[in-house]
Amino acid sequence: MNKVINLETTRQIEFIDITSLIRKEVEARNCREGICFLYVPHTTAALTINENADPDVIRDLNHTMEKLVPVKGNYFHREGNAHAHVKASLLGGSTFIFIRDGKLLLGTWQGIYFCEFDGPRRRSLYLRIMQENSTY
Amino acid sequence: MNKVINLETTRQIEFIDITSLIRKEVEARNCREGICFLYVPHTTAALTINENADPDVIRDLNHTMEKLVPVKGNYFHREGNAHAHVKASLLGGSTFIFIRDGKLLLGTWQGIYFCEFDGPRRRSLYLRIMQENSTY
Amino acid sequence: MNKVINLETTRQIEFIDITSLIRKEVEARNCREGICFLYVPHTTAALTINENADPDVIRDLNHTMEKLVPVKGNYFHREGNAHAHVKASLLGGSTFIFIRDGKLLLGTWQGIYFCEFDGPRRRSLYLRIMQENSTY
Repeated sequence: MNKVINLETTRQIEFIDITSLIRKEVEARNCREGICFLYVPHTTAALTINENADPDVIRDLNHTMEKLVPVKGNYFHREGNAHAHVKASLLGGSTFIFIRDGKLLLGTWQGIYFCEFDGPRRRSLYLRIMQENSTY
Repeated sequence: MNKVINLETTRQIEFIDITSLIRKEVEARNCREGICFLYVPHTTAALTINENADPDVIRDLNHTMEKLVPVKGNYFHREGNAHAHVKASLLGGSTFIFIRDGKLLLGTWQGIYFCEFDGPRRRSLYLRIMQENSTY
Repeated sequence: MNKVINLETTRQIEFIDITSLIRKEVEARNCREGICFLYVPHTTAALTINENADPDVIRDLNHTMEKLVPVKGNYFHREGNAHAHVKASLLGGSTFIFIRDGKLLLGTWQGIYFCEFDGPRRRSLYLRIMQENSTY
């Protein structure tokens, strides 16, 4: 199973909460115990897990990333999206979440974010579930 | 198997070496070949693997993180822990280590650290082992 | 299976494109569907996935990392490689790529990079494949 999830981003920089989307994908399958792996096949987007209660948390993340790696900086890469490549490597394009009793095992305040740094674009996200094969 | 490990942190910012704790968990199970996955269900804590011989390495990591994302900064999030959320995303809250011949396959100088950025608190850490199911 | 790949780096800081190396390892095994996990057992090296078409992208990544965590800084660790330890934690020493139909499922522009921050050295990289054990 290699599920491809399609996303459309609408701004240059955007943090999209994909928690309910991923939850639905996981619950639609009958894996009771395992791990859900997520992978972004792009080089100017990333994934991060952080608080989804107060949207200011994500604003702070974005502002800090922008302070550290400004959109307009002194870069070699001429396409205007060098910052986006660096941000993608800093946050990373893959993550995983445990599945317990058929449900995504996120912490109380955790949400999964698709981080667009060079939008708007059509994006993909790969999802793969590995079922636990023993009772260790 | 979804093992929940409880931790109590004692300071606002603290890097706790959990290597022997994780090693004990892994060796207590009879998985010979596989992967040990670790996951932090919090949004102001993280995991990192780095040197555990000279404690100055972790001091430098902490000081650099603090230089890049200061505790007292100009943040939107009003709870005083915005820096902790950003640091959590930069280091990431999950990692994995291979298991070979029943043992955790860390490099010579590697230790696993639970990174507290908003303590002191009671924290959890999830551990899950996937056994290798073939001999590829 | 725990494959150890040996690498020799030739400079202090070096981003080595290991995509074709990893692809060859994966294709040499007959796993059709699964995940390829990569792990660096060192504390001054890392892995990242980013564009391998324009080498300026990696130059920008390196220059930004250097701006944020300079080689010559005010560090506690006296071995002269404190920056390398910090960079290793920021990028992270492990990653995974999906395998579909026996092939590494990278995005069009993605390459896998071994990031040396304290070379030149002999380095290792661990590779492990987990086969998908169901059709979820």
